[in-house]
Amino acid sequence: MSSWLAFSGCLENRLLSSSPIYRRQLFLIRSLGGYCCRAHMEEGRGVPGVGVSTSQTDAETVIQRITPILDPSRHKGQAGKIAVIGGCREYTGAPYFAAISALKIGADLSHVFCTKDAAPVIKSYSPELIVHPVLEESYSVRDDEKASVSAKVLSEVTKWIERFDCIVIGPGLGRDPFLLGCVSDIMTHARQSNIPTVIDADGLFLVTNNLDLVRGHSLAVLTPNVNEYKRLVEKVLDCEVDDNDASAQLLSLARRIGGVTILRKGKSDLISDGVTVNNVCNYGSPRRCGGQGDILSGSVAVFSSWARQYISATKEADSKSVLNPMVLGSIAGSTLLRRAASLAFEHKKRATLTSDIIEHLGRCLEDISPSK
Amino acid sequence: MSSWLAFSGCLENRLLSSSPIYRRQLFLIRSLGGYCCRAHMEEGRGVPGVGVSTSQTDAETVIQRITPILDPSRHKGQAGKIAVIGGCREYTGAPYFAAISALKIGADLSHVFCTKDAAPVIKSYSPELIVHPVLEESYSVRDDEKASVSAKVLSEVTKWIERFDCIVIGPGLGRDPFLLGCVSDIMTHARQSNIPTVIDADGLFLVTNNLDLVRGHSLAVLTPNVNEYKRLVEKVLDCEVDDNDASAQLLSLARRIGGVTILRKGKSDLISDGVTVNNVCNYGSPRRCGGQGDILSGSVAVFSSWARQYISATKEADSKSVLNPMVLGSIAGSTLLRRAASLAFEHKKRATLTSDIIEHLGRCLEDISPSK
Repeated sequence: MSSWLAFSGCLENRLLSSSPIYRRQLFLIRSLGGYCCRAHMEEGRGVPGVGVSTSQTDAETVIQRITPILDPSRHKGQAGKIAVIGGCREYTGAPYFAAISALKIGADLSHVFCTKDAAPVIKSYSPELIVHPVLEESYSVRDDEKASVSAKVLSEVTKWIERFDCIVIGPGLGRDPFLLGCVSDIMTHARQSNIPTVIDADGLFLVTNNLDLVRGHSLAVLTPNVNEYKRLVEKVLDCEVDDNDASAQLLSLARRIGGVTILRKGKSDLISDGVTVNNVCNYGSPRRCGGQGDILSGSVAVFSSWARQYISATKEADSKSVLNPMVLGSIAGSTLLRRAASLAFEHKKRATLTSDIIEHLGRCLEDISPSK
Repeated sequence: MSSWLAFSGCLENRLLSSSPIYRRQLFLIRSLGGYCCRAHMEEGRGVPGVGVSTSQTDAETVIQRITPILDPSRHKGQAGKIAVIGGCREYTGAPYFAAISALKIGADLSHVFCTKDAAPVIKSYSPELIVHPVLEESYSVRDDEKASVSAKVLSEVTKWIERFDCIVIGPGLGRDPFLLGCVSDIMTHARQSNIPTVIDADGLFLVTNNLDLVRGHSLAVLTPNVNEYKRLVEKVLDCEVDDNDASAQLLSLARRIGGVTILRKGKSDLISDGVTVNNVCNYGSPRRCGGQGDILSGSVAVFSSWARQYISATKEADSKSVLNPMVLGSIAGSTLLRRAASLAFEHKKRATLTSDIIEHLGRCLEDISPSK
């Protein structure tokens, strides 16, 4: 048995290592080409933990494999159609960052569905985005019209939803109860239509309070930061975050929510779908300006849809049921963001802003996967 | 008889090759200087087809001939006044791309006529454009005021229309029935005023459902993409798209609509006015980000108006009745967009966005036709 199966120190992972599905998935991910997963012993504080560490080379190989060839015979839309559901009176930058990142990585079309107040502002950031002013907040809706407005919002969004390869729920969504109710309906519809969904920021607030929205949704990715992860662990596992056994706890969490993929953001990013745990730890930037999470959510959306295309095109039918495109997309998105952040920091140092990082996404992807 | 008249394999084209108008047009286009049309046999799958292939050199010669000399004695407006009718609550990027492309190529003035919601956003993209907030969508008009609002919209636009050398109908127009009704009235008025008209995007949706808007309009150019072309063929020819005989089918289509020019966008662009078929195939970019069609519509508008000026200034009176400025404008617009897209892709690779391509229009035109 190779070393990457040699788990220890946690019942869940001993069980895991003996699971045929787990072994098969690790084998397939590794055979993606140079991509290898290794058992990673976290020996700090004398408490052994479990993780599957992804070297930079491994992660870059994932990016190379899933990034589609730029073929002149392809038509508009085939390299990805992404939508971001977010943007309200208060927040407009976040959905822009997520949507423009998707385009800069290589998606063909990027839409934003936001409130009426937010739309002109988001549109003005860039003519490249298609911005739909369709969401409503409580302050603009009378009680007696809530049911009809809610139905209208749902119909305005759902008439588009099946065109998208992936949607991102949450950047700049805010916490207005009426708006979140509408977004719950949108999420339910998207799930019924089998649309991959990345959930971040206020979308995680929504999901943490209503886990049924994502329970068992294998095409969902949650991207919590430290605080969002804490709330999720408390709600689902009914315990505190255990950094000494971070991978095992993340694995339990993903499993307990029925196999959603969780990308836990931190000094290194931990990714699990309840079957594998991957650790992306290439160096990013010490700068913590707001908005980097939005880049990540847009990036994961594009790469997940590319990974889905890649897997459905592979000849080995077996891999289709085992390789998880949301995990591959998360590894790729995390890796690219870190590399772009690192490059932006080299140039701008303490003055680095999120827009500077976005400007480096293209070059970083080109370095990893040249478009020829 | 030279090879470029040696058609075969299609009744329509055998008839065509014997037409004196057709022979005269080909002779005049060729004599534009170095611009030569050649019979092009598509022998794939054993079904011979017909096309007239335009080499890059030929197309660039067209651009050189029709691009006006920059003469200090000329005054504002003489290098082209273009208007884009489009831009609604949902779409604001598309009319901006079309209008700013016209300016970047060399038009003197570029206007946008859009809805009241869209205007502030389009204005915010650039102070170079003149943006008129005059169109209305159903949601802002009561049923009992539709007739009066419609009349007001028409008068607001038509008081300007005769100043324009070419109008572009469609980028970001949307599909609101009331708005499309108003735009039908505008198109009818523009046609009566003999204003050249480029029709793209939702303008094609409008025209496909009401062919009388363009039937027999020799100064109209339709610029359909794959899906728009499919709908047009099904509606007009009552058959499927035949890629094995693409040129002959396009020729039939243009002829059936009474000699409008059709620029069929694809891996190579096919252009026909029912008399000739031209194929522009210089290499562009494999990137298929949304918005490139808007650049094309703005470009064709400028070049068509320049071609019209060029033809009316030629001494040979005969050429005025035979050379089609809309065909020359389409060849020039398609060629320039492809070259700019290629150059933008060299720099930005997969991260190339429509704005990057627009930034290369000027330099590409300068390379082809130096302003001295």
